[in-house]
Amino acid sequence: MTSVSAPVREVLEGPYLAHLVTLNADGSPQISVVWVGIEDDEIVAGHLGSWKKVQNLQRDPRVALSIETGRPGPHGLAEYLVVYGTGRITEGGAPELLQRLARTYIAPDVRFPPMDNPPPGFVTRITVERVSGNGDW
Amino acid sequence: MTSVSAPVREVLEGPYLAHLVTLNADGSPQISVVWVGIEDDEIVAGHLGSWKKVQNLQRDPRVALSIETGRPGPHGLAEYLVVYGTGRITEGGAPELLQRLARTYIAPDVRFPPMDNPPPGFVTRITVERVSGNGDW
Repeated sequence: MTSVSAPVREVLEGPYLAHLVTLNADGSPQISVVWVGIEDDEIVAGHLGSWKKVQNLQRDPRVALSIETGRPGPHGLAEYLVVYGTGRITEGGAPELLQRLARTYIAPDVRFPPMDNPPPGFVTRITVERVSGNGDW
Repeated sequence: MTSVSAPVREVLEGPYLAHLVTLNADGSPQISVVWVGIEDDEIVAGHLGSWKKVQNLQRDPRVALSIETGRPGPHGLAEYLVVYGTGRITEGGAPELLQRLARTYIAPDVRFPPMDNPPPGFVTRITVERVSGNGDW
């Protein structure tokens, strides 16, 4: 992550939704929209259950994500960031991560997940390999 | 496309950017953000050049796209649409399609592409197979 520029880091730490792409067992793409943050130089996302994206990453680490910032970008078109990387899954820690990210994505004083005793879940950790998109990255 | 609901059609015909995922030769995912519309019951996107996504779809028709609407969705989280489908590429017609979509995405009176004699380009045509995401689709 030390290789990403300050504008890329600002987007990854901001309140922008990430369109996360993993690969199904048959090689077809799977997309879900998630909250992301940065932890120990990796992009992180939290999942309370063993969702398909978790199972996909446990089998095939190739991952990509894209983020719209809502700002105008180069060429008179919308700015967006694409990150290609390698993902891994660690067990536990999802509620704590989601609570931290919810302060950015919902409101500073929100309680999330909105339940008692949430399951420990899983955390996706992505090492950035290449950055693309429409922006001065 | 007759199988998609009215809310899905409204999103696909609206001013919402689509995160389009195709598969590279090595099976890894490729993402770019594009304008989309509907034509003859297919989702369409126009490309002035033989970009990587065009080459990818000519080799592997499996495609997915996701769209944020900016509206709140179920579960207190943002609404988004995911479409899984099969894509094909036709040659020519990109400037005319982009001009039509630019009226939705930029402004009704915009001229796009902003050049004389644009190349004929390519059009991606996607048959919807499955709809997912966070929304009442």
